[in-house]
Amino acid sequence: MTRPTLTGTPDAVPTVELDDLIDGGDLQLIDRWLAQAGEVQIADDLARLPREQRAVAFRLLGKDRALEVFELLDPSVQQELLEGLRDTNVQQLFDGLDPDDRARLTEEMPAKVAMRLLAGLSPAERQLTSTLLGYPEDSAGRLMSPEVASLRATMTVAEALDRLRRIGASAETIYALPVTDDRRRLVGVLGLRDLVLADAPTQISELMDTDVISARVDSDQEEVARMMREADLLALPIVDTEDRLVGVVTVDDAMEVLEEEDTEDIARAAGAEPLGRPYLATSVVQLARSRVIWLIVFIAAGAVTVNVMAAFETTLEAAVTLALFIPLVIGTAGNTGAQSATTITRAMAVGEVRLSDLTPVVGREGTTGLLLGAILGAIAFGPIAVLIGTPIAAVVSITLVAACTLASLIGSALPLAAKRLGVDPAVMSVPLITALIDASGLLIYFIVAGLVLRL
Amino acid sequence: MTRPTLTGTPDAVPTVELDDLIDGGDLQLIDRWLAQAGEVQIADDLARLPREQRAVAFRLLGKDRALEVFELLDPSVQQELLEGLRDTNVQQLFDGLDPDDRARLTEEMPAKVAMRLLAGLSPAERQLTSTLLGYPEDSAGRLMSPEVASLRATMTVAEALDRLRRIGASAETIYALPVTDDRRRLVGVLGLRDLVLADAPTQISELMDTDVISARVDSDQEEVARMMREADLLALPIVDTEDRLVGVVTVDDAMEVLEEEDTEDIARAAGAEPLGRPYLATSVVQLARSRVIWLIVFIAAGAVTVNVMAAFETTLEAAVTLALFIPLVIGTAGNTGAQSATTITRAMAVGEVRLSDLTPVVGREGTTGLLLGAILGAIAFGPIAVLIGTPIAAVVSITLVAACTLASLIGSALPLAAKRLGVDPAVMSVPLITALIDASGLLIYFIVAGLVLRL
Repeated sequence: MTRPTLTGTPDAVPTVELDDLIDGGDLQLIDRWLAQAGEVQIADDLARLPREQRAVAFRLLGKDRALEVFELLDPSVQQELLEGLRDTNVQQLFDGLDPDDRARLTEEMPAKVAMRLLAGLSPAERQLTSTLLGYPEDSAGRLMSPEVASLRATMTVAEALDRLRRIGASAETIYALPVTDDRRRLVGVLGLRDLVLADAPTQISELMDTDVISARVDSDQEEVARMMREADLLALPIVDTEDRLVGVVTVDDAMEVLEEEDTEDIARAAGAEPLGRPYLATSVVQLARSRVIWLIVFIAAGAVTVNVMAAFETTLEAAVTLALFIPLVIGTAGNTGAQSATTITRAMAVGEVRLSDLTPVVGREGTTGLLLGAILGAIAFGPIAVLIGTPIAAVVSITLVAACTLASLIGSALPLAAKRLGVDPAVMSVPLITALIDASGLLIYFIVAGLVLRL
Repeated sequence: MTRPTLTGTPDAVPTVELDDLIDGGDLQLIDRWLAQAGEVQIADDLARLPREQRAVAFRLLGKDRALEVFELLDPSVQQELLEGLRDTNVQQLFDGLDPDDRARLTEEMPAKVAMRLLAGLSPAERQLTSTLLGYPEDSAGRLMSPEVASLRATMTVAEALDRLRRIGASAETIYALPVTDDRRRLVGVLGLRDLVLADAPTQISELMDTDVISARVDSDQEEVARMMREADLLALPIVDTEDRLVGVVTVDDAMEVLEEEDTEDIARAAGAEPLGRPYLATSVVQLARSRVIWLIVFIAAGAVTVNVMAAFETTLEAAVTLALFIPLVIGTAGNTGAQSATTITRAMAVGEVRLSDLTPVVGREGTTGLLLGAILGAIAFGPIAVLIGTPIAAVVSITLVAACTLASLIGSALPLAAKRLGVDPAVMSVPLITALIDASGLLIYFIVAGLVLRL
């Protein structure tokens, strides 16, 4: 993959990276770099700096640019940056944010700091932010902007454009315009494009799309974001229990949610808790903490494998050669199970597989595992038969068929079971699944060995 | 996670799923269901049907709705659907698509079918589609729409709005408007919002943002999409080598690219090739084919683990108890390595880690592995010492420390090495990494055992 060539943009100019300049310590050079770089690049490079150095570079930005860069940062980095700034700067930045960004940042702050900052806002701004903070975490309510530009169905195009010129500047988006009736209930939606292209005297009710897709304020953020992606929406109106318009979620916020959720799912699949912050801004202790739980679960579950092995110690003593293939057999089964689990977890996340698909999914995964086990067993048989002997080769091959089938069944059933229990399917991580498969694979191996070798 | 409550939308009405109705075979019921359901739901449910049944349901849709539903389908499903339709229907659908969607669909078709369909287009439409097909696969050129509504810097706001009323209906988006000079070179960008809110006589050159972020037509799609997400752009102007505007990538297409790329990375991480189609529309043979390669690589690499074990067969015979802990030790190291690999691969994908970060990344992963190994070794020591004996407990604990450290080093270094070689880092999959770690973990285990137990 080649890095896209950024053309005609100041983002392309600096070939030096900010961290090298900061290491150099020449403030004038840093200042010149900041003047040339685009906001996206500044935000990117700031996140990579050690926390003490971020405030240095940040204070060199002008007030307006500082806000733009700040809005592009990850909430965890925003918060650390605030800690390094003086109080007046902090309140200034906080004032300048949109209510939804402010609510998200506030979540991460110590309550005392958040209260002080909220107290410094104008009453109207404080009201907006507190409303958002009243919705459950990860709900559409936290993600939406309450500053929504809406139209009335009874307006004409000319009146609507007039209204937008008055209120449009403060609204989060005016590209998708929710249309309401006189009780603020959502009755339609109109794209700015259609409004601009229409004749002045036309009524909004004639233009608007009444097939409007909306979501409730307590919906899950990830589901809302996936819905927007599926339906290619720039903005999604959010309504309360009585179908009254309360806000709008924009596509940029939806994209961010999806990226975060995917990062979370990917981390969980490998048995690590999501970091919730940029990698290079994470300490080794935080890294270890995010991963240690599932490893401990694996080690604890490993006691089962040790017991299975111990139960068959006499078999092992009689044929130590059996031990040679243990890593191969359980590794292959573990990998097969991990493939199933990962595929099903992702298919559920993107909405391709639903809970009601349990039977077809487990059925096709079991068949796939059987097919894979047969192929791998056939491949392994020849070399082992030649080098070690046919009986051991038969044991390994038969075990591969049975263990791969079982592994695929376990790997596909567990994420679906988790979903049914209301747990994130991604929690059925590779370490957990390998632990289960290791134990059952070993059991199969020794039972098959006992039968074939008559031990 | 609760399903978002879709309110005031026909999407919420049908509680039956389309596949159940098709199984029933009552065309009237299916017809009524289709009339009530929203396009997104129809597209979702169509993708879940067996291929033969899709055309049945699809033909019951009206012409305009058929096109809308078709545009929401995955290209692989679109293609299969086309195969089930009569030629006139096919050409009608193909005509109605946007040039970028048409180019993507054509990629998946047998060349003969594609040529015939392209021949049926109007010369102008054919020209647009062929131009897109001339760009490399996965380039921004394939993703962009050439139907871009652009403004001239010398226009007034009134002239610009007039122009949009004339050409706006056919453009892919008019929300972000690229501004060009008299040689079609990109000089700025203007949001429709700013245009609508401005006074009629103002010149575009005064309103436009000259800090424009753009990408070259040969840039990689994923990088372009991540850039749009980072900078919160609704549309990104695409230019040729001479900085002339040739198209625009819209945020909905960027979101789709990101979802596909994430799906791909997730599949690869588990050692499976991406399916490139919805899960339930994939056959068992296709599933097995997507997974078998890395399993075979693992089995082949497994020959090394068998050899390591064989080399230490006398050690094993002297202390069969050692065998009991083999699954535990290599499983733990494998999981630790997979955690590192997954974390680093994701951090690179979202742009948090760059190639130049090799030293700090491998350094902090090695330290994390050491820390994890120490914790796990400490946990394992007590129970093993009590149940089996101190010497074996020491062997297991020391091995865990060394093997986890090595696993984290391998797991973090390999994705970075792949990137440097120009290979997708996600290809450094869990099966490959576990194979390497199994062999080295066993080696460490037996060497430590030899030293501690003096065998």
